[in-house]
Amino acid sequence: MKTLIIIAHPDITESNSQQFLIESTQNLQGVTRHILENRAFIVKEEHQLLAEHERIIFQFPMYWYSAPAILKKWLDDVFTNQMMKGFLNGKELGLVVTMGQSEESFAAGRKEKFSLSEIFKPFEALANKCGMTYLPIFPVALFGYLTEDDKKKILIKYQQYVTKENKETFISEESWFIDRLRLLVEQKKGPEQMRLETVLEAMEENRDNLDELLYLVKEMRYEDD
Amino acid sequence: MKTLIIIAHPDITESNSQQFLIESTQNLQGVTRHILENRAFIVKEEHQLLAEHERIIFQFPMYWYSAPAILKKWLDDVFTNQMMKGFLNGKELGLVVTMGQSEESFAAGRKEKFSLSEIFKPFEALANKCGMTYLPIFPVALFGYLTEDDKKKILIKYQQYVTKENKETFISEESWFIDRLRLLVEQKKGPEQMRLETVLEAMEENRDNLDELLYLVKEMRYEDD
Repeated sequence: MKTLIIIAHPDITESNSQQFLIESTQNLQGVTRHILENRAFIVKEEHQLLAEHERIIFQFPMYWYSAPAILKKWLDDVFTNQMMKGFLNGKELGLVVTMGQSEESFAAGRKEKFSLSEIFKPFEALANKCGMTYLPIFPVALFGYLTEDDKKKILIKYQQYVTKENKETFISEESWFIDRLRLLVEQKKGPEQMRLETVLEAMEENRDNLDELLYLVKEMRYEDD
Repeated sequence: MKTLIIIAHPDITESNSQQFLIESTQNLQGVTRHILENRAFIVKEEHQLLAEHERIIFQFPMYWYSAPAILKKWLDDVFTNQMMKGFLNGKELGLVVTMGQSEESFAAGRKEKFSLSEIFKPFEALANKCGMTYLPIFPVALFGYLTEDDKKKILIKYQQYVTKENKETFISEESWFIDRLRLLVEQKKGPEQMRLETVLEAMEENRDNLDELLYLVKEMRYEDD
């Protein structure tokens, strides 16, 4: 699967959160970053870019409960009706939203009153119209106040959001780690490579055991019915 | 009450619906139309304009379940946090949305899946944040297919949306008509003025009767409790 991250921010060099996110995907395979600049878009080129990727991610800071104007301009210019009828069908659409409010404040009865799912409904409607699968929103709240530990957790979750298959199962999560570990084993040499290989073997063995266990549970459920 | 209509459309001269709406408010008092052009906004001037009006209306065609990019640019530029803390509080925010789909298609189970209230949630959140009263959305669907009769009905409803106080009562509706009629009586002369005066008198007498009736109903309800 190839992923296109479309980044809309008026000044990326000044944004710590965008810099962090961009660095987080630097070494990921199959990921293209596309930073929107304030110019006329060449529609054909943008279509080509979309065509080459299966997961499309809009990444931006929340401005007035939506994306910055530049992303809307890109959408108005590039998402032609002609295109919509065709090749977006079956692709995935995700949102990575940085924001200066806590995630908790987006709820009925709280300060912002509405949930993020409600606020970004226009993007869900867009996905719906284009026959795309809408992914859960990935919020990055109050980045400036995060500890180094929090940032590490976000880094992993973000890398998964960008590259992991869209299944909320433990097996999917484990597969993703095993794949990443395999890449790492190939890059390393000598004793470090051997140590990583041992970890990898243990994880894979673990998975075999888990598969057997899952099979057993299924059998038992079947007998119960 | 003074009303500011902020119009966002890439080419107003080419839009029959925008032309119709603009003409509909041509003779209304206390209404300012502000057509957004693709240029840098002078924030201070825009703030001044907002400060001078109590009802703010965003008028635009729906593009990808939101306003055209130019309105978002205006919002991102003009709605500063500093401003927000101050003078928007207590004002009203309305949306006039032209669209190429039927109103009915915006519902769960229908083609567009989501209601207009859901789709324009970001504007409700904006009003909420700024302490503004959010008015019901005014949709103008499939303008090109409307009969002359339908258009006349929309004209009246639209003029009311722009100038009538925000109360869904019969009395509020009647007051609006009486006020408009009074203006007309002043402009006319001779027998036409007399005829209109007779209508006006009849309506006002009617209202007195209605007031008495409403009072009576209230009394009866009170006795029932």
